[in-house]
Amino acid sequence: MYRSARNLQRFSARLSKLRAVQRSVTLRNISPTSDVLLNQLRMASSQSYRIERDTFGELKVPSDKYYGAQTVRSTMNFKIGGATERMPIQVIKAFGILKKAAAEVNKDYGLDPKIADAIMTAAEEVAAGKLDDHFPLVVWQTGSGTQTNMNVNEVISNRAIEILGGKLGSKDPVHPNDHVNKSQSSNDTFPTAMHIAAATEVHEVLLPGLQKLHDALAAKAHEFKDIIKIGRTHTQDAVPLSLGQEFGGYVQQVKYSIMRVNAAMPHVYELAAGGTAVGTGLNTRIGFAEKVADKVSALTGLPFVTAANKFEALAAHDALVELSGSLNTIAVSLMKITNDIRFLGSGPRSGLGELILPENEPGSSIMPGKVNPTQCEAMTMVAAQVMGNNVAVTVGGSNGHFELNVFKPMIIKNVLNSARLLGDACVSFTNNCVLGIEANTERINKLMNESLMLVTALNPHIGYDKAATIAKTAHKEGSTLKATAVKLGYLTEEQFDQWVRPQDMLGPK
Amino acid sequence: MYRSARNLQRFSARLSKLRAVQRSVTLRNISPTSDVLLNQLRMASSQSYRIERDTFGELKVPSDKYYGAQTVRSTMNFKIGGATERMPIQVIKAFGILKKAAAEVNKDYGLDPKIADAIMTAAEEVAAGKLDDHFPLVVWQTGSGTQTNMNVNEVISNRAIEILGGKLGSKDPVHPNDHVNKSQSSNDTFPTAMHIAAATEVHEVLLPGLQKLHDALAAKAHEFKDIIKIGRTHTQDAVPLSLGQEFGGYVQQVKYSIMRVNAAMPHVYELAAGGTAVGTGLNTRIGFAEKVADKVSALTGLPFVTAANKFEALAAHDALVELSGSLNTIAVSLMKITNDIRFLGSGPRSGLGELILPENEPGSSIMPGKVNPTQCEAMTMVAAQVMGNNVAVTVGGSNGHFELNVFKPMIIKNVLNSARLLGDACVSFTNNCVLGIEANTERINKLMNESLMLVTALNPHIGYDKAATIAKTAHKEGSTLKATAVKLGYLTEEQFDQWVRPQDMLGPK
Amino acid sequence: MYRSARNLQRFSARLSKLRAVQRSVTLRNISPTSDVLLNQLRMASSQSYRIERDTFGELKVPSDKYYGAQTVRSTMNFKIGGATERMPIQVIKAFGILKKAAAEVNKDYGLDPKIADAIMTAAEEVAAGKLDDHFPLVVWQTGSGTQTNMNVNEVISNRAIEILGGKLGSKDPVHPNDHVNKSQSSNDTFPTAMHIAAATEVHEVLLPGLQKLHDALAAKAHEFKDIIKIGRTHTQDAVPLSLGQEFGGYVQQVKYSIMRVNAAMPHVYELAAGGTAVGTGLNTRIGFAEKVADKVSALTGLPFVTAANKFEALAAHDALVELSGSLNTIAVSLMKITNDIRFLGSGPRSGLGELILPENEPGSSIMPGKVNPTQCEAMTMVAAQVMGNNVAVTVGGSNGHFELNVFKPMIIKNVLNSARLLGDACVSFTNNCVLGIEANTERINKLMNESLMLVTALNPHIGYDKAATIAKTAHKEGSTLKATAVKLGYLTEEQFDQWVRPQDMLGPK
Amino acid sequence: MYRSARNLQRFSARLSKLRAVQRSVTLRNISPTSDVLLNQLRMASSQSYRIERDTFGELKVPSDKYYGAQTVRSTMNFKIGGATERMPIQVIKAFGILKKAAAEVNKDYGLDPKIADAIMTAAEEVAAGKLDDHFPLVVWQTGSGTQTNMNVNEVISNRAIEILGGKLGSKDPVHPNDHVNKSQSSNDTFPTAMHIAAATEVHEVLLPGLQKLHDALAAKAHEFKDIIKIGRTHTQDAVPLSLGQEFGGYVQQVKYSIMRVNAAMPHVYELAAGGTAVGTGLNTRIGFAEKVADKVSALTGLPFVTAANKFEALAAHDALVELSGSLNTIAVSLMKITNDIRFLGSGPRSGLGELILPENEPGSSIMPGKVNPTQCEAMTMVAAQVMGNNVAVTVGGSNGHFELNVFKPMIIKNVLNSARLLGDACVSFTNNCVLGIEANTERINKLMNESLMLVTALNPHIGYDKAATIAKTAHKEGSTLKATAVKLGYLTEEQFDQWVRPQDMLGPK
Repeated sequence: MYRSARNLQRFSARLSKLRAVQRSVTLRNISPTSDVLLNQLRMASSQSYRIERDTFGELKVPSDKYYGAQTVRSTMNFKIGGATERMPIQVIKAFGILKKAAAEVNKDYGLDPKIADAIMTAAEEVAAGKLDDHFPLVVWQTGSGTQTNMNVNEVISNRAIEILGGKLGSKDPVHPNDHVNKSQSSNDTFPTAMHIAAATEVHEVLLPGLQKLHDALAAKAHEFKDIIKIGRTHTQDAVPLSLGQEFGGYVQQVKYSIMRVNAAMPHVYELAAGGTAVGTGLNTRIGFAEKVADKVSALTGLPFVTAANKFEALAAHDALVELSGSLNTIAVSLMKITNDIRFLGSGPRSGLGELILPENEPGSSIMPGKVNPTQCEAMTMVAAQVMGNNVAVTVGGSNGHFELNVFKPMIIKNVLNSARLLGDACVSFTNNCVLGIEANTERINKLMNESLMLVTALNPHIGYDKAATIAKTAHKEGSTLKATAVKLGYLTEEQFDQWVRPQDMLGPK
Repeated sequence: MYRSARNLQRFSARLSKLRAVQRSVTLRNISPTSDVLLNQLRMASSQSYRIERDTFGELKVPSDKYYGAQTVRSTMNFKIGGATERMPIQVIKAFGILKKAAAEVNKDYGLDPKIADAIMTAAEEVAAGKLDDHFPLVVWQTGSGTQTNMNVNEVISNRAIEILGGKLGSKDPVHPNDHVNKSQSSNDTFPTAMHIAAATEVHEVLLPGLQKLHDALAAKAHEFKDIIKIGRTHTQDAVPLSLGQEFGGYVQQVKYSIMRVNAAMPHVYELAAGGTAVGTGLNTRIGFAEKVADKVSALTGLPFVTAANKFEALAAHDALVELSGSLNTIAVSLMKITNDIRFLGSGPRSGLGELILPENEPGSSIMPGKVNPTQCEAMTMVAAQVMGNNVAVTVGGSNGHFELNVFKPMIIKNVLNSARLLGDACVSFTNNCVLGIEANTERINKLMNESLMLVTALNPHIGYDKAATIAKTAHKEGSTLKATAVKLGYLTEEQFDQWVRPQDMLGPK
Repeated sequence: MYRSARNLQRFSARLSKLRAVQRSVTLRNISPTSDVLLNQLRMASSQSYRIERDTFGELKVPSDKYYGAQTVRSTMNFKIGGATERMPIQVIKAFGILKKAAAEVNKDYGLDPKIADAIMTAAEEVAAGKLDDHFPLVVWQTGSGTQTNMNVNEVISNRAIEILGGKLGSKDPVHPNDHVNKSQSSNDTFPTAMHIAAATEVHEVLLPGLQKLHDALAAKAHEFKDIIKIGRTHTQDAVPLSLGQEFGGYVQQVKYSIMRVNAAMPHVYELAAGGTAVGTGLNTRIGFAEKVADKVSALTGLPFVTAANKFEALAAHDALVELSGSLNTIAVSLMKITNDIRFLGSGPRSGLGELILPENEPGSSIMPGKVNPTQCEAMTMVAAQVMGNNVAVTVGGSNGHFELNVFKPMIIKNVLNSARLLGDACVSFTNNCVLGIEANTERINKLMNESLMLVTALNPHIGYDKAATIAKTAHKEGSTLKATAVKLGYLTEEQFDQWVRPQDMLGPK
Repeated sequence: MYRSARNLQRFSARLSKLRAVQRSVTLRNISPTSDVLLNQLRMASSQSYRIERDTFGELKVPSDKYYGAQTVRSTMNFKIGGATERMPIQVIKAFGILKKAAAEVNKDYGLDPKIADAIMTAAEEVAAGKLDDHFPLVVWQTGSGTQTNMNVNEVISNRAIEILGGKLGSKDPVHPNDHVNKSQSSNDTFPTAMHIAAATEVHEVLLPGLQKLHDALAAKAHEFKDIIKIGRTHTQDAVPLSLGQEFGGYVQQVKYSIMRVNAAMPHVYELAAGGTAVGTGLNTRIGFAEKVADKVSALTGLPFVTAANKFEALAAHDALVELSGSLNTIAVSLMKITNDIRFLGSGPRSGLGELILPENEPGSSIMPGKVNPTQCEAMTMVAAQVMGNNVAVTVGGSNGHFELNVFKPMIIKNVLNSARLLGDACVSFTNNCVLGIEANTERINKLMNESLMLVTALNPHIGYDKAATIAKTAHKEGSTLKATAVKLGYLTEEQFDQWVRPQDMLGPK
């Protein structure tokens, strides 16, 4: 099998380059443009480092990376969790949007247009995910996210320098602090990026997922509206309802889920930008905060506004705790719905068997008909995770002190994770389960007709006592209500069919 | 000390009666009217039991109690947690309101007015807390709350019978099921009572408490608006802000807390009444649901409406999970605020010492000036409890199956507990702490003036490098910025005073 | 003071007395001895107050109460939650044990024997629950529990004064601080009482409850050992196991639950007593800590020892967080077991129906055979509560600062609540459900024989392909494996019976 | 299949190869050997697919991957969360260990040695992390982890086929089910891999991290043993203790953390292997379970044993809930310790300032001496995450039904995440913070000497009243105790120095 390896011998020299490329390839599923790829290849080929410095001294920075000394220092100081624990890429993209907006506003306030434009171009690339490889920092860093803000500043600065023909690491003509971070502080940019990222994820992933699920369930509720089935309370047999009514309850839950998310958004739309270090806005210009919020709103199409109170916006993350609470409620709803569906679809012989769930993958190599409700399982696992994430967000949100909450990266990681998992799981569950659900009408009718609860309908005709006798006898003898009633001589078969009509038990009169 | 005991010897015969009275006295702080007390005394004196029966057979019921066999049976079957774990009295009162409303609507639909009126009178007494002793059941019963619904039905039935001159336990002329529970099921009444109780507690306890705290903090923010102090980020010294700004952040958090509660209420205002056993409304009349909601709304002054979807209203408790999520967010806010206040008030010598907290009780028998921030401690304990309660509600809310969630008593217990504790703690914290907070301006000024962060203001005048030299030297030598700056010959004392003005660092320019 | 007792000669006069008695009767289910009752009655009759003072000034104390000024002050400053939120009585009783032990040790170290003995007698009464009415404080007080410690000191002091013939409130000859609290501080006594209360509750309520449940499940596992039933994985039909094996899994879970509790106890047995204010043991004598632990151990019969590190014992409550974590794991186990039992007992017609659960109360006035699994519901509600309590304990445990954690009352409230609810619920569940569970063998056999999974047994005889054809055909046609196999001509009825033997599928070979 | 490799002669052609390499490079930090790299390169170059089939039909499998149809199908059905949500690589490695052990035992029981040996070699490569690229599945799949078990079976089968010279995808001579999964089921292998992964992570990451932190704190406690400082209770000034005593409390917490982890391990060492589908061990041989546990124990050096009850081991994950509970307790401990350290290190001018924390990165571009306690922040964020993870595990653990808990992937993801984050954070915190902590003795002494609490020491000499007068006067006038005492004429300076000796207040006498 390795025989073709000889064809590669002449490339052996290039292998070291390839290894370097490999190192530079990150976990994110981006499709880098060939331009960027070429650049990476060129940078990688050098296997070299440049020297950058921060106020603590000099550090080697990989030549193929746009980030600088503070980023490298963070990777050295925070070896916690490894690559899977990186700052969510949505936060990086949100920073791209924010930095572009800030540069544009700064240009209005007098920043050299050449520099501002280069920053905007570089920031756009960050927002577009073109530079994802250059953000290696993990969530478990400083609790203000300062190092990620600096990572962004460094990458944009170096990329802008490159655009302007300068030397990477020279901080000239685009300085990461003086220009890219102008009128900003980590303390206001990071929460701003948190809100942009959360709102974007909600709108791009969560709400579409919920809507898709809602629509599929609503279609099923309509499809099943005439199928009458036994109800179950306390997991025990109860009076009938239609399968459409049962699914209608799920539809309502998802409809309200969408409302709950939307109700939590107004505070998320408030941006901290303009608060700078402690919320006073020191070192910004009057109007900066409002203009940045307007630009971000224009760039994202979402109704962002400047935060009503910047002190609250830096020192607390109640808005994200609130959003996480909504996600928690949604998880509760989805757990209920999916649990119902898997129990109603249990079987094929020894379960409730009222629903036939789509068969998506081999359930067993032996038993035909064994359909594991795997989509329900994925969804309920997601729900459990979201409930846990909500506690993490709660603990982090409650432990801020004075002018700054320093659980920021952890909070946004969990909120984004919850929104993403819920949204994705809704789509997967809809496509691979809900859309294909069929009612097992034969089974439903059988259970329905065997039910002892229908005896309720006889009360007005033969009285409670006789009805009770019928039910008790049928239960004891394992017979049907009709057979027992006739056998007891209380009524005729025709009368039974006329009086016991589940379809008349589905609503008030 | 026991000498006066002889005076009581002639009452020895009555002691047995008193013991019986004692047994009947519950944990609730009501002031029973003498009418009720007389009645209890009369009933207690008998030390006797009457026989009541349910479908399982006969049971002895204490003569001095209005409840019946199903209540007694529940006390026998659910010995879990004891008296402190009783169904919250707010649920009982809410049931009183609901039963009154239902009786009135049933009268419209043809219920014998004499019976309906007696039910309404008895239900009013329940709602007014006059019969609290007659509700002995614990939370840890059937998950539908059926036994509490029956407890209410039995008490109202017997009390109505008494009003109409009948015999307790006879179910005549007022039957607990046929009359008191008419057009109802535990499955829709219990969630209705849950929503009434939650909404009432929110309006009577939580919102007033939050508003009181908000107003007190806002007054302090105004009072402190001109006191400039050092800011703290990462718990470390940072640039200044005013104490008013700092308190303004708290004000915003509480203002948003109130908004968050209100945002969660619309779904709580939806009442399940009219859904009966599984949500179909079987055995009710068209219009019953809407009329009951209207009556409850009229009785409470709150905008209750009939639930848009009764299946959702019985099978899920998302509305209360949502409300609990709001309470959780409020707990997060209050934890932050109270933590800040206790740290800012720490000392008297070795803490931050910027605030002087009111001294409410002896902190120590030895050390004057030791003021323990006990109100902050009570509040943060409450916050932790609310966070835990939210998880309990989440777990319960997610584990409903099919047509009925059976974690109802646990869910409402936790929601009411959170609302009550938060509301009460806000009042206690406001009255005993916030209102009396004073700024320790001497200390605040001292820290402010010693701060090295003010050096920032010199940058435009002498350049960053010289400013940094001043700061580093001052830090190293433990001296002030001014003394160091003058000593280094960079500027005069007058220039320092002119340039370094904290009051100019409190906002954008 | 009690002179007015002689005026109690008319019914109207007695009424006011009765009201006072009512006020004095607490929520705790004690059976007061007539001695105590007489005393209460006598004290109540006066409706008068005495004046006591603390360092903040004078306060009116009800004449019929042993507590003093600091207790009254706490009731004024902490109006949070009301009577249902009182400090758990187990903590009060634990304090009684501790104070008795401390007095005895103090006597060894020179405390006046007369005073020490009176303290010991009074402390014994506290431990025995005779003075429960005298502890009105709520959980939501100072986070160190100082006020409850003082409440105990005041009650014991006044009761001891009474025993010695002194005047209530005089602090003479028994001073609450100097004598009752000698060599102690709230900072070490409260955590000591927490551990005593938790360990006692574990041993008196939780472990017996778990053992009872274990034994009942083990008996059922034995009883059901020969009943072969279909297994279910993913809630779907799977290969068979015996009902005894299924219950054996539950037995193992409860067995391990007991082990988990026991594994958590060693750190709970560590007592903080002797650490005094910050853990140094200032103002105690060398040996005091060890001697107190020995006495407490002797009084309780539990292996208490002095904490290895007093600083940890005051500043953290990791031991109780650990215990709460064990209770959380037990809640997880019990949730699983009870969920299984209610689903296996679901029906009577339209559920799984393999178990017949005892019928404890009317499930419905209409439908015979409707047995709501109410004990399962109570247990799962308890489990949800314990999970929430664990989060409250976690948040409180993590937020201690410096030398003292100030979430003490909240932490112990939740731990005790979890232990009590779990223990009580185990007993209730065992008595009212497990002991009466019967296997519905007819139903079990029917499901078993209809199962398509048994086809697995044919593989060695007729090959996988033919076996699969049988199963698929049977599934499609809704027929049995045997009928299908014979119809397809693959084997005879006799061969099927010989080869398909569920009892041979229950273990490795 | 790899013929096209010869065409790789131009840069443009190489580019497509590079892109493919990029796609194949995963998020895991492995250092692929050049052998594997060559293989990947070769396989990638083809950009081709092979056809594999499962019982649902044919699917295209990338030529450069060892996995097969069921893996591909899972990637199609579960698009939830993306690459960052992949099954933790530790689970994959644990599967490698298990599959090797099972193959060896199967060889003992008669499996063709050639096949067994090839499986063992391939499994070793999986365990060694050489094939990490071939495990693309996410956590959010079927709740039994079946698809990951099949992913492992497919990869090992194909790699073994390759070793034996066969054709990838042919299932010949090594079948993924019949050979690699022999005597196994997903239902027992996945929980076995969970336990192996958890135990390994605990031993390789968590325990070493805790031990490192313990040792560093213990060294500091020793270093600081003679530094006497003010104690703080309720965050307020209290009596003194030594800084060594304060750190000694932390040491105890970490020491107990290690004990808590170890106490939770016995049940984690129990392996489900041998239980197969529902726990009966159907299709295994007697002795298989024990032998596999022995092999796994030998391969890992950890004391694994076969689970005492296989039904419990499949249907519940109490052992991991228990472990997660221990991790939660550790998080509580570490939150406390790191909060203390950041507050004690707060300043430099306006905080407590008793500790000098190492300066690891620029805290601010302006202010020298601003050291943000970033390591504390990372640790407290980790602690919050672990608390959240514990709730997710709790919810998942409690929701298992019948013979199988189907929250397996979510549970193990969270447990591994908690163990890893805690272990890594301990190392980072130790290296970058604890080791470099210095006591600011000047500050400590100043606060110590200014403290009013020291007045306690005068009580025996001048009486409580005079002592109190001194303290109150000093507090009011802002003067020192000594100055005040002398000024009041109560004692001389010499007497004060002789009597007020903090070093005598550090223990019992």
